[in-house]
Amino acid sequence: MKVSVPKGTRDFSPAEMVKRNFIFKTIREVFEKYGFQPIETPAMEQLETLTGKYGEEGDKLIFKILNSGNYLEAAKVRKHVLKDIGENNFSKLDLVVGDYYPLGFVATPKELLNDISEKALRYDLTVPFARYVVQHQNEISFPFKRYQIQPVWRADKPQKGRYREFFQCDADVIGSDSLLNEVEIVQMIDEVMTKLKINVTIKINNRKLLQGIADYFKITNFTEFVTILDKADKMGVKFIKEELSAKNILHHPETEIFGTLFFEAEQKELKQAVEKNKLNLIRVWSEEVKSEAGMKGIEEMGTVFTLLRSCALQTAACDLDISLARGLNYYTGAIFEVKANGVEMGSICGGGRYDDLTGNFGLPNVSGVGISFGIDRIFDVMNELNLFESLGLPASTTKVMLAHFGATERKYCIGVAAQLRSAGINTEIYPDVTKKISKQFDYANKKQIPFVIVIGADEVNTGDLTLKDMNSGQQSKVKLNEIINLLK
Amino acid sequence: MKVSVPKGTRDFSPAEMVKRNFIFKTIREVFEKYGFQPIETPAMEQLETLTGKYGEEGDKLIFKILNSGNYLEAAKVRKHVLKDIGENNFSKLDLVVGDYYPLGFVATPKELLNDISEKALRYDLTVPFARYVVQHQNEISFPFKRYQIQPVWRADKPQKGRYREFFQCDADVIGSDSLLNEVEIVQMIDEVMTKLKINVTIKINNRKLLQGIADYFKITNFTEFVTILDKADKMGVKFIKEELSAKNILHHPETEIFGTLFFEAEQKELKQAVEKNKLNLIRVWSEEVKSEAGMKGIEEMGTVFTLLRSCALQTAACDLDISLARGLNYYTGAIFEVKANGVEMGSICGGGRYDDLTGNFGLPNVSGVGISFGIDRIFDVMNELNLFESLGLPASTTKVMLAHFGATERKYCIGVAAQLRSAGINTEIYPDVTKKISKQFDYANKKQIPFVIVIGADEVNTGDLTLKDMNSGQQSKVKLNEIINLLK
Repeated sequence: MKVSVPKGTRDFSPAEMVKRNFIFKTIREVFEKYGFQPIETPAMEQLETLTGKYGEEGDKLIFKILNSGNYLEAAKVRKHVLKDIGENNFSKLDLVVGDYYPLGFVATPKELLNDISEKALRYDLTVPFARYVVQHQNEISFPFKRYQIQPVWRADKPQKGRYREFFQCDADVIGSDSLLNEVEIVQMIDEVMTKLKINVTIKINNRKLLQGIADYFKITNFTEFVTILDKADKMGVKFIKEELSAKNILHHPETEIFGTLFFEAEQKELKQAVEKNKLNLIRVWSEEVKSEAGMKGIEEMGTVFTLLRSCALQTAACDLDISLARGLNYYTGAIFEVKANGVEMGSICGGGRYDDLTGNFGLPNVSGVGISFGIDRIFDVMNELNLFESLGLPASTTKVMLAHFGATERKYCIGVAAQLRSAGINTEIYPDVTKKISKQFDYANKKQIPFVIVIGADEVNTGDLTLKDMNSGQQSKVKLNEIINLLK
Repeated sequence: MKVSVPKGTRDFSPAEMVKRNFIFKTIREVFEKYGFQPIETPAMEQLETLTGKYGEEGDKLIFKILNSGNYLEAAKVRKHVLKDIGENNFSKLDLVVGDYYPLGFVATPKELLNDISEKALRYDLTVPFARYVVQHQNEISFPFKRYQIQPVWRADKPQKGRYREFFQCDADVIGSDSLLNEVEIVQMIDEVMTKLKINVTIKINNRKLLQGIADYFKITNFTEFVTILDKADKMGVKFIKEELSAKNILHHPETEIFGTLFFEAEQKELKQAVEKNKLNLIRVWSEEVKSEAGMKGIEEMGTVFTLLRSCALQTAACDLDISLARGLNYYTGAIFEVKANGVEMGSICGGGRYDDLTGNFGLPNVSGVGISFGIDRIFDVMNELNLFESLGLPASTTKVMLAHFGATERKYCIGVAAQLRSAGINTEIYPDVTKKISKQFDYANKKQIPFVIVIGADEVNTGDLTLKDMNSGQQSKVKLNEIINLLK
């Protein structure tokens, strides 16, 4: 018999958990340091809470849960009885329930789906958060700064860096349009990545700047414009240009400047001139066509960069990237994306400002901004760059194992362990009675426990314990209180 | 529009999360202190991994997940075509798929269920753990001490203390039949409950003792005997006695002693005699009928209690309770159950030894023992007894908020916050620019942030900051480094 986990899901071993928990802890501590407070929501949401929020493609990737009980029984409540419809109309029926149901009730596939599933696994943490805010609006004091670290599920095709169950680590401020929030998000990214020793570039843009550009180039379908731009990373520049012109999105003669603004330079001098001050160029354009959005975007980014200059980032580079678009429709202001330098991996963190996330649930016009860390990709990046090793993370949560030569010695271990543990030292007694000390060492070695104390008759009599450092192989006779000082 | 979460599931607010995280942290630290290492498994398991492991009743409570994609399409692969069966045989069909499918394929309800669901949400952590051990047996060095803290899902009828999504905190040792493991489990329970300030009684029994009793009373259906005993708490003693005699489980004339052994005394002197030494009584009985299981049970419990005496428990009482049965069939040795004293609440922790948990998955005869903490009931108990208050738990993860009188002052806050944060103090800057300082105080108050620093023009000029203790209402002018020392 072969046992397995469902496609796209994973088990995590103790060695992996030590690493993952380090990442979680780092992110959690930074979130709390900036005043974000934790919430949790159920894994299941009402199906209607989730559907229609992620676009048509997204809807298909939502994992639905079968109603409990004999879900087929639910079809019994259907009004249509087979005999009322008659066998002649059989071809018109989408789905016919025959003598399985004594009364022969009938349901269409859509009705059947409603009968069999009304709950689903959350697809992200953003929609459940919006639902939470609306549901608990009277208990919340706004601006509400929450963080949430929980798994999400997507029926995506599994591939490198893409899983069907993965964790999101989200922090959002809702009910505040202050740009200080954007600045603190950049600071948090910098702090998390510095602690994890990941060298990153934070790309920042603003949907309003894109709107200004769209206004200047007389692009009317903004959503499609953004959707196409968002594919640049995956599909390449050539595809994007063709797509923009094929879909009649770009009519303006100045395509050359447009291309240079977003992509690689075709004329070197032009590129240099544009790079020098993209914001100025967009300002000129926005003023020319009186684009309110464009002007507002310029102002917002000016404020963000001014505030950012007053708080030196530790290791991250933070660059304006006009070509950054982000796929989600709900973004309305600043947008962020973080890439690890020197690794081939999609973005490991992303987010942005939205003006109406809770509108769907009946609480319109509440502005917010948020960021989401992709723990699984961060884990992969850190493994690839051997960062866990350079952080000196212990391979095991256990600090010391007590080995013994027999039942009497093992009983003695209980008292020794109690003292070690009450000093906060994670201690394991080898549980079985066995004379084979090498077997016990082997066990400690495989579990990567860094220290072993050996208890024999001598040790029981004298209280001088034998301590072995499993890394260096060094062995010495030491009193318990010295061991405690050493290991604490 | 009314938004809600699915029945039996809950949101957790920041204030609740602080409490819950304290419980999780306490349990996690104790597990690690005793050498247990963390693993995690996916929320979804293959349906076949779970079915048949929890009895017929349990199977019905497993939440199944609809296959992704257009699951109805899957029925298309079915071989049976409607026209081959013919309309005359219509009444024999369980389920007929009509012109919804162009080719008119047909499936029985069972086939349909297979087509639409092959994954399910985990029902407990024990079966996924058994699956994990078998799947990763070549990477594991036994005895394997793992802990696992994750949510589980059950389609149970929600009621007080019973949810459809709840967390389990499990620790198991597998691949060791040492009774030291039983002893350490009792120690861990004592340590967790002492840290949480919950006064508990740990009831301990051994399935082998029950087998000895069954042998003496010539009870042949042991499983049914245990199942009936397990209902004593819920159904009362009278019901149990009637049930035992109605099902012909108890024929022996000495029913009186039997009743006294398990339940309340009907003759006072007899009860006292029995209470005095239950183990001796069972030893005598077991010897009389030569019950191997009974004798082994006596020996095991003797060892456990001898070892337990050598490690003084901190606050928990640990009593032999012959009437403790536990419902699950896989237990074969020691069994545990923990009740909080002074509260009406089911057991908050339970576990036991099993000899063949992994046999289902092809790895037979591996003995193990484990314990599971019910975090949600522990949370309810602690709330009911106001234990969070007496533990002095902070209501908020944020320590201090910076209030300000305008944009210049807010900008000054960024530097102040950076210094507080780098000293490890969780700090929030009120994000919006507003002259209304009372609004900012109100916000800090509602979020139960214990300290507020007020930054006005004066503070920016002199560096003397105004610190307000939100609990006492006291306000004072202090330098930042003094504030850091005070709050650290």
